Amino acid sequence: MKLATLRTPDGTRAVRLDGDVHVDLGHADLGELFAQPDWRAQAAAAAGPTYPVAGADFAPVVPNPSKVVCVGHNYTNHIKEMGRELPDYPTLFPKFAETLIGAGDAIVKPAETDALDWEVELAVVIGEQVRRADDQQAADAIAGFTVMNDISVRDWQFRTIEWTQGKIWEASTPVGPYVVTPDEVGGVRPALKVRTAVDGQVMQQDDTGTLLFDPVFLVKYISTVITLRPGDIIATGTPAGVGNARDPKVFLLPGQTVVTEIDGLGACTNQVVAG
Amino acid sequence: MKLATLRTPDGTRAVRLDGDVHVDLGHADLGELFAQPDWRAQAAAAAGPTYPVAGADFAPVVPNPSKVVCVGHNYTNHIKEMGRELPDYPTLFPKFAETLIGAGDAIVKPAETDALDWEVELAVVIGEQVRRADDQQAADAIAGFTVMNDISVRDWQFRTIEWTQGKIWEASTPVGPYVVTPDEVGGVRPALKVRTAVDGQVMQQDDTGTLLFDPVFLVKYISTVITLRPGDIIATGTPAGVGNARDPKVFLLPGQTVVTEIDGLGACTNQVVAG
Repeated sequence: MKLATLRTPDGTRAVRLDGDVHVDLGHADLGELFAQPDWRAQAAAAAGPTYPVAGADFAPVVPNPSKVVCVGHNYTNHIKEMGRELPDYPTLFPKFAETLIGAGDAIVKPAETDALDWEVELAVVIGEQVRRADDQQAADAIAGFTVMNDISVRDWQFRTIEWTQGKIWEASTPVGPYVVTPDEVGGVRPALKVRTAVDGQVMQQDDTGTLLFDPVFLVKYISTVITLRPGDIIATGTPAGVGNARDPKVFLLPGQTVVTEIDGLGACTNQVVAG
Repeated sequence: MKLATLRTPDGTRAVRLDGDVHVDLGHADLGELFAQPDWRAQAAAAAGPTYPVAGADFAPVVPNPSKVVCVGHNYTNHIKEMGRELPDYPTLFPKFAETLIGAGDAIVKPAETDALDWEVELAVVIGEQVRRADDQQAADAIAGFTVMNDISVRDWQFRTIEWTQGKIWEASTPVGPYVVTPDEVGGVRPALKVRTAVDGQVMQQDDTGTLLFDPVFLVKYISTVITLRPGDIIATGTPAGVGNARDPKVFLLPGQTVVTEIDGLGACTNQVVAG
C-alpha cells in the first residue's frame, strides 16, 4: 500500500493510493491511523470517499510525530567525502514536528543563512510501539518507508559541536509523499536507488542497500534508548553529494527546485523561497 | 506563583501552591494551562479543590512538551573542566517527552550503561508562542523556572560526535517540582544558588547568575530557529562537578539518592534504581 496524509478543505485526511484516486481511510492523518492496532487491515479495507490524485496537497506523512530521530554517517561514500572513519555506532540527532513540511511545499530559506543544503534520505515510519525491540519486533514495527530531504542550515549546524541547531529549522524538511509498506519495496531492508536533483542537475545518487546501519538495526538501536511510537520517523542518513562537501560549496537559492527521490517511494519536489 | 502538575487518582492536575495545600487550576497539566492566553490570571484566581502538599506526587511540570531543548557549555567553570574555550554560540541538543520524569520519581539506570551522570540545570518553561522573539517578547514568553537534572548516559553520549543518544533515555530526567514565576525569583535573569548532592555529598554548586547565555538570550536564539510553544522547556546547562569530569570518574549507582536543587525553586530528589 501507498499511504499519505492529504490537506483537504476539511482538514488533513489519511488516504490510500488506488490508481488515480486517494481513498479516505477514516482518520485525520497517518499518525492517527498507525496508532490503531489493526491499521493494516483498516487501511486495506477502507472504501471511504475518494479524492483525485491530480492536484493532491500532501501534508508531512505524519504531521505531528512524537519524535523524529535522524542518523548521520550511514552511506560509505558520504562518510568518506566528509573525511571520517567508518563508525561503530550510528550518529543520532533530532528534528521536531514543526520542522516538517509536505512533499510539494515550499522550502523557506531563512534570512539568517546562505548555507541551505539538501540531504536525500530513506525514512522509516513506525507502525507499532516498541522498546528494546529484537530483530523480529523491529521488523514488525516498520509501517513503511518514505522520502525525507533532511534540509540542513550548514553555518548554524557547525557553529558548535552539536548539529541540532542546523537541523531543526521551522518548516524546512520535506517528508513524503507516501508511506510505502515494506511488501511493495522488497521488505524491511530495501535496496532502492536514491537521488537528489537541483534544477534538474543530479547532485546525489546511491542505493539504500549500501546503508551501514539498516532500518531494522536502527529501530533496535534507537528503541534501546527510548520508546518508539506509531508515527515516529527515523531518517536513515544521506549519501555523498551534499552541497557543503563540494568544491566550491554549493547551496540552495530562492527560485531553485530541489527534487529528492527514491525509486518505488516517489519524490519530494520543493521550490526554495526566500524567508 | 509556584505551579505544578500533580498525579492524582483522577489523572494529572495543574495546581498552584498555597501554603500547605495545592489548589486545582481546572486544567489537566501545566502544558494545558500555559496554552491559555490568560493563564496568569486563571492561575492567580483559581479556587478549585485542594490537595495536601504532604505526599504530593509530582509529574514532570509539563508531561508532554512539544520540544525540550537543552544547552551545553553555559557555566564558565564547567566549560573549563571539560577543557573547552568559551563559546560564541550556545550548544543545543534535544530531549523528548518520554525522557522526562517527576521531581520525586525513581531514575531508572538502564542495564546498558554503568556511566549514569547528574547535571543540575535551571530550566525555562515557555508560556507563550514565539518565533524570532525580540528581547521583550522573549522575556514575556517565560512562564517561569524549574529544576532539571539532565541525566546523561556518558558512554552512549560519547559513542559518536553527537550527544543525543546519551541524553534522551526513557524516564531518566527529573523536571520539577514547581514552575516558579519570574516575579518570585527576581525576574527573567535570576541569580540563584544551584547545587547537586549525591547521598548527601555536594557534587555541584554554582550560581545561575553566571550563565554565559541567559534565559532571555536563549529564548531569542532558539526561537530564531523554531517556534517555541507554551509548555516547551529549555534547560540552560550545568555547572562544574559532573561525575564524568572527576578523577577518578564517579557515576550514579542503584540505591543512591541524587538531589538537584535551586534556591527559590525547590529540589528534585530521586532515588536511582536498577533498570
